[in-house]
Amino acid sequence: MVRLLQSYVSGRWYTAPDAGTPVFDATDGAEIARVSSTGLDFAGSVDHAHTVGGPAMAATTFHERAAALKTLGRTLMSQKDEFYALSRATGATDRDSAIDIDGGFGTVLSYAGRARRELPDDTVYADGGVEQIGKSGSFVAQHIYTARRGVAVQINAFNFPVWGFLEKLAPAFIAGVPTIVKPATQTAYLTELVFRRIIESGVLPEGSVQLICGGVGPLLDRLGGQDSILFTGSATTAATLRTHPSVVHNGTRFTAEADSLNASILAPDVTAGSAEFDLYVRQLVTEMTAKAGQKCTAIRRAFVPNGLVDAVIEATRERLSGITVGAAEGRTMGALVSTGQREEVLNAVRSLTKSCEIVVGSDTAPDGPGAYLPPILLRCNDNKADELHDIEPFGPVATVIGYDGAHEVIELAARGKGSLVASLVTADPALAREIVLGLAPYHGRILVLNAEDAKESTGHGTPLPILVHGGPGRAGGGEELGGIRGVLHHMQRTAVQGSPNILTAVGRQWITGADRRTAEPHPFRKTLAELIVGDTIVAGPRQVTAEDIAHFAEFTGDTFYAHTDPVAAAANPLFGGIVAHGYLVVSLAAGLFVDPAPGPVLANFGVDNLRFLTPVKVDDTLTVTLTAKTITPRASADYGEVRWDTVVANQHGKPVATYDVLTLVAKS
Amino acid sequence: MVRLLQSYVSGRWYTAPDAGTPVFDATDGAEIARVSSTGLDFAGSVDHAHTVGGPAMAATTFHERAAALKTLGRTLMSQKDEFYALSRATGATDRDSAIDIDGGFGTVLSYAGRARRELPDDTVYADGGVEQIGKSGSFVAQHIYTARRGVAVQINAFNFPVWGFLEKLAPAFIAGVPTIVKPATQTAYLTELVFRRIIESGVLPEGSVQLICGGVGPLLDRLGGQDSILFTGSATTAATLRTHPSVVHNGTRFTAEADSLNASILAPDVTAGSAEFDLYVRQLVTEMTAKAGQKCTAIRRAFVPNGLVDAVIEATRERLSGITVGAAEGRTMGALVSTGQREEVLNAVRSLTKSCEIVVGSDTAPDGPGAYLPPILLRCNDNKADELHDIEPFGPVATVIGYDGAHEVIELAARGKGSLVASLVTADPALAREIVLGLAPYHGRILVLNAEDAKESTGHGTPLPILVHGGPGRAGGGEELGGIRGVLHHMQRTAVQGSPNILTAVGRQWITGADRRTAEPHPFRKTLAELIVGDTIVAGPRQVTAEDIAHFAEFTGDTFYAHTDPVAAAANPLFGGIVAHGYLVVSLAAGLFVDPAPGPVLANFGVDNLRFLTPVKVDDTLTVTLTAKTITPRASADYGEVRWDTVVANQHGKPVATYDVLTLVAKS
Repeated sequence: MVRLLQSYVSGRWYTAPDAGTPVFDATDGAEIARVSSTGLDFAGSVDHAHTVGGPAMAATTFHERAAALKTLGRTLMSQKDEFYALSRATGATDRDSAIDIDGGFGTVLSYAGRARRELPDDTVYADGGVEQIGKSGSFVAQHIYTARRGVAVQINAFNFPVWGFLEKLAPAFIAGVPTIVKPATQTAYLTELVFRRIIESGVLPEGSVQLICGGVGPLLDRLGGQDSILFTGSATTAATLRTHPSVVHNGTRFTAEADSLNASILAPDVTAGSAEFDLYVRQLVTEMTAKAGQKCTAIRRAFVPNGLVDAVIEATRERLSGITVGAAEGRTMGALVSTGQREEVLNAVRSLTKSCEIVVGSDTAPDGPGAYLPPILLRCNDNKADELHDIEPFGPVATVIGYDGAHEVIELAARGKGSLVASLVTADPALAREIVLGLAPYHGRILVLNAEDAKESTGHGTPLPILVHGGPGRAGGGEELGGIRGVLHHMQRTAVQGSPNILTAVGRQWITGADRRTAEPHPFRKTLAELIVGDTIVAGPRQVTAEDIAHFAEFTGDTFYAHTDPVAAAANPLFGGIVAHGYLVVSLAAGLFVDPAPGPVLANFGVDNLRFLTPVKVDDTLTVTLTAKTITPRASADYGEVRWDTVVANQHGKPVATYDVLTLVAKS
Repeated sequence: MVRLLQSYVSGRWYTAPDAGTPVFDATDGAEIARVSSTGLDFAGSVDHAHTVGGPAMAATTFHERAAALKTLGRTLMSQKDEFYALSRATGATDRDSAIDIDGGFGTVLSYAGRARRELPDDTVYADGGVEQIGKSGSFVAQHIYTARRGVAVQINAFNFPVWGFLEKLAPAFIAGVPTIVKPATQTAYLTELVFRRIIESGVLPEGSVQLICGGVGPLLDRLGGQDSILFTGSATTAATLRTHPSVVHNGTRFTAEADSLNASILAPDVTAGSAEFDLYVRQLVTEMTAKAGQKCTAIRRAFVPNGLVDAVIEATRERLSGITVGAAEGRTMGALVSTGQREEVLNAVRSLTKSCEIVVGSDTAPDGPGAYLPPILLRCNDNKADELHDIEPFGPVATVIGYDGAHEVIELAARGKGSLVASLVTADPALAREIVLGLAPYHGRILVLNAEDAKESTGHGTPLPILVHGGPGRAGGGEELGGIRGVLHHMQRTAVQGSPNILTAVGRQWITGADRRTAEPHPFRKTLAELIVGDTIVAGPRQVTAEDIAHFAEFTGDTFYAHTDPVAAAANPLFGGIVAHGYLVVSLAAGLFVDPAPGPVLANFGVDNLRFLTPVKVDDTLTVTLTAKTITPRASADYGEVRWDTVVANQHGKPVATYDVLTLVAKS
């Protein structure tokens, strides 16, 4: 009895009452599972996300969500073997499974780490600096991001049943937005298994994730202006979803990541037999064979200077001859996801033969069970033929295309009308600038490969959690990942205007002009738990004498003429006479504000945004004001970070230096 | 003879051969112009932007574009009287015209200033920091923004014929993207006049701006994946444009800014007769009457605690009684754009009377020529009635709605399904945080008004160039302005991966790991013109003795125990013994790298991102390496800014401090 996959909605596992659609093992064609969502309460699923998942997530901070993802990622990593075993049915070799499974869990862990380091322990994220609008500073503005109060509905592709859903889930989760996952039917069994382990872990709040194996029925009709649809798949399906009434009339956000005709360019500076030539060919073969070429980031168009086309084809042929296809241990390339998919690929190859010839492989499917297909390399005879830049065989297929000069290859690459990624193999930095800037408007990611970075390169086809993934035009126009950038796509940016006191309360970040609390004790005597945003110490004055400046110059060796030579200093257009060293000013300021005895403040670990605004002249007197600006506990340590707004003023009350002092302060 | 408005496409003024559609003066109904784009070469217009405007703009840097906008803004400002005179025909009072005309030119100048200060003198903008991917640092990544290689087609609303097109033009122009302007027919005559003056000024490169007065014909069919449509207007038209084949199939970007049911909330802490109560009523009346209420940001829903509904209505009635309607000098409210528009507004008011009663004004149009309509205030009897949160009378109309508590008002505001702006009048910071964070996911902008900021507040209805403008859901889901944020909407974000040398060449920003040029002379002896990114000085070593630390403590007064008390310092969990002051380390580093004699380096004006990475112990020796990272000439001065990557290392080669030193360097 083949198992009918379950869905997980509204806090319960659901089994459809009908037989479902059969799904087959890619390696032998045996039925492996059945899929159906018949009878599922789709509306209830959206309501559950809105009324249970959303509020549960809104009650947690970025750091709490990060901690949950960290636990989840580690738990899943420890269960890897089970996932690898099932993954083989998708046609994947174990190396392919690593991309999907380890790649997915790594993305979860990457988001956990980034969120802890780059987001506050709050639900609000400040975007950019404070904008002073009025002259006196009583009316200011700050852009903030807050979580959208909706659900993110994922509609995924078959090729990455694990990574595909986790790379969408992790950023939404950090943002505080619940997710409904809809895997592609062909490989839903693997998504279901991983999802089951997630639910069993109990790590994620109820309602924050749901799973629908099978069609989404009327689900999308229930979406409104706070919800979003995140799609990965074909341009055709993307176009259909883009015109869904919820997207057109309700303001549901839609983002798509579609297959594209990614280019890999061998630059004009590379010669046959060079290290870069070899890197180009190796990368091409890797991209043709990993996941049997079923990656939306795989190389489809291999651009090569006209004079090197033959050499590249020969070297690629040679290297492809080492590829062995099959399910047995040691085979270097697995199966396509289904024989139907293989037929689509072969049809696409046949269409390309209008302007190309097959130079490795053939356009007929091999005999035997399983959706195997040896790699196919084409050689193009007309680099401007439309089909070349339009038809994508989504399998182990690439076309070598000759070109003449940087200008032409930029133009040819753009004929793909927008791609997820391009790679450029060159050792020439100036040429790299020219070609990269020419390609950039059409690409979400560009990899420049050469002997300098090859050893550590993660490769043409590999999206990374810290880099954006997506592309304009044909590639779908969407953007995912990119570290915190991917989190912000699930949030609303809002400009908040008000008085400094109001904005300080809203963002829990002290803003110039807001009230300062100058009551005893010295704020350096307060623990992290006792400190409050706005706690202030005013210290000074201290006079800066001519002797101080001369002595500092001699002691540090900083004998710059503006500090030592009255005549030369008078000629300086900015100073017009001897001035104190900037470093002297901040050193004396520290002498004023520091509280010497051991206490909660453990160290000053840095300074940000130091600006010297007014020269300090001989006999000026300095006063310094330090105000607690942000207070950020570290989950993994018994101290946290306190950022102090710092203003050093002269005897006229004029600021001479402003900066942020960064300290580590014990929690208790 | 009434004049037929001209279009400006492909570098020429175009007059349609037919009679065109008549447009009428809002104040007296007289015909003022005719509009037609019949026979215009729409395809040629798109091609012209792609083949002439785009390349011309690509050849300029952000700073050059900023300089052009600055000249343009000043030129237009000097011609204001002519625009004000014509603006009266739109129904605007002179105060209304200031919002449109001065607001538009101010936006142009704001973008000129921001671009010079916040963007490099280049065509590439770096987004975020460098990401080290490999362990050794040989493979890194940087996100960059480059201009989309397309055209931005604006489709504008009638209410801001000047600001409306300039607020879209300025960010696109700075990005390097050409624009085609299509004004609303009713007020196109004012747009045409300003546009004519722009062309006459000769300031903008040919092809960078075009104007189409009349329908856009098949223009949108010509757009592709690098083009965009920027729409301001009704939700219905937005929905039509959103399903245009170019948007659905070609990847043309579409952004909309639609009218919304903006809320103004009197918070529960405010009492009748208080300063905040008065501010609330004043703002409500201003928003009802400015531009005769024809602003997509105007207040439609006035939320008031149940107990204050009567008081607010009375106070608003009182204040509205001072409003005089008409075209004559001294009148405080002008006309709607047309009698047709007035009829639409009155129909909307009639629909609202299902659940509301009119408490000021009436739902019948006054007699006489001109599209005048005195303000109408409604009182709601059922705060959950659907029409209240759905029907928008786009004129001098608002509804007072009672509510009970912060939780209810957040929920009621959200029923507008997404708005451009909300205002909240409160003096309570904690309440402000609660309500602002509740409103934020549904809003593009939130203004918190109280006695502290009222004097400088720019008001509920005023978008500012430095703050984002737009809103989710019903408000269109788009985002414009927001300073550089608005520029980036016209650019493509791309993750570029490569070696440090490659990325340094691509972004013209030195990246750790890239080659350093250590040849003579000392880089501080080079002018801005002579300096090259990567120029480096290595200086040192200098030993830090116990006497240095003790002396620095005594001299500066910074006697923190970690520098002075061996026993206490040993107990510090981070130091484990006496360490040098961070400020001593950077002061000594300056002593090592400074070149004392007068030369091109005028001043050190700041330090960024200073981090103390490793404690400096007694008798450690320091070496400092300074490398020119970015070089930014200032257009308005004979010097520019040089940012120096700075690393202070100890005798083991371990970095003890890293930071950027910011200097001003003479151009020659």
